[in-house]
Amino acid sequence: MFPKSFKKLIDNFTTLPSIGPKMAERLVLFLFKQDAQKLSDFAKSLEDFKKNLRYCKKCFNISEGEFCSICKDSSRNQKTICVVEDALDVFAIEKTNKYNGLYHVLGGTLDPVKSAEIKNLRFAELEKRIAAEKIEEIILATNPTTEGDATALYIARFLKPYAIKTTRFARGLSTGADIEHADEITLSSAIVNRREL
Amino acid sequence: MFPKSFKKLIDNFTTLPSIGPKMAERLVLFLFKQDAQKLSDFAKSLEDFKKNLRYCKKCFNISEGEFCSICKDSSRNQKTICVVEDALDVFAIEKTNKYNGLYHVLGGTLDPVKSAEIKNLRFAELEKRIAAEKIEEIILATNPTTEGDATALYIARFLKPYAIKTTRFARGLSTGADIEHADEITLSSAIVNRREL
Repeated sequence: MFPKSFKKLIDNFTTLPSIGPKMAERLVLFLFKQDAQKLSDFAKSLEDFKKNLRYCKKCFNISEGEFCSICKDSSRNQKTICVVEDALDVFAIEKTNKYNGLYHVLGGTLDPVKSAEIKNLRFAELEKRIAAEKIEEIILATNPTTEGDATALYIARFLKPYAIKTTRFARGLSTGADIEHADEITLSSAIVNRREL
Repeated sequence: MFPKSFKKLIDNFTTLPSIGPKMAERLVLFLFKQDAQKLSDFAKSLEDFKKNLRYCKKCFNISEGEFCSICKDSSRNQKTICVVEDALDVFAIEKTNKYNGLYHVLGGTLDPVKSAEIKNLRFAELEKRIAAEKIEEIILATNPTTEGDATALYIARFLKPYAIKTTRFARGLSTGADIEHADEITLSSAIVNRREL
């Protein structure tokens, strides 16, 4: 029904996560109304963006060179590693300006349901770093979900013999949230972890 | 914070409708994990899709040639024009296989709030078609919204002197909907336009 090249672009958009066929149609119609130069720029940035990028050899963050800008920055605390699920978490944490150590991007979580195994994660690489670098603290910053918690627990257990300080982000109410609508587990965490003013 | 080319692609995605910065980040991370060939295909389909496409000279549908496949199809009823807001409506109506006439894509609606004027729509072109072709029925298939209704009303008034049959899609309950949750206006339409079984 759609002209062929129109349909092809719709199909391409539909492969992306959280974009369904209807949304893809709207996106492509929107693009059709843009001028050719803009489309060409978009196409070029899509074609090129991976050419300049790779995974950092040390922490597996997205990087322009062999090592990412964070790993290359010698002013950062080299004795702390924050373990995250994916690269977007690194950027989210960096935006807070509250962390000055290094990162390690696992590339996912353990998930018993999907039988995602530890060998699919960059866990062996984390082990090597712990052995090679003099790490004093590991922050297990996987998401506060069942899978994220399980993964953090797995790593924490593994780290026991190393006697490295192992921490996890605080759980409690989100800023701006209201208590009435907080889920029970979050509210429980907030009560148990209450702090003196 | 993000590497430059990564950020640039995020910015490109953010210009698309209903894609916010967070969703753009996730899309770009997803694309980063795809193989280069797939990205290259995507980029090519984005670069090329507009080259092969234009607006149909007659009905302003999206077309591969000067006239779209619908306008070129002489087996279709040449005496009926279905006036729609945009090209996606054409494809949606075509999918039903219930309409065999021609189309006219207005390119939007009148909107008093945004002061969208009739001169921005392909209304003059519709006038010309009505004068030139022997049209017997005009279906005003703008969306059932305030703006769509206003636009249909405007065109219907204009068509009065031509004594052309002017229709509008039926209003009532969606198939699969339930009466309990239908909004008042829809339910009113459904009651008023009830049909004998």
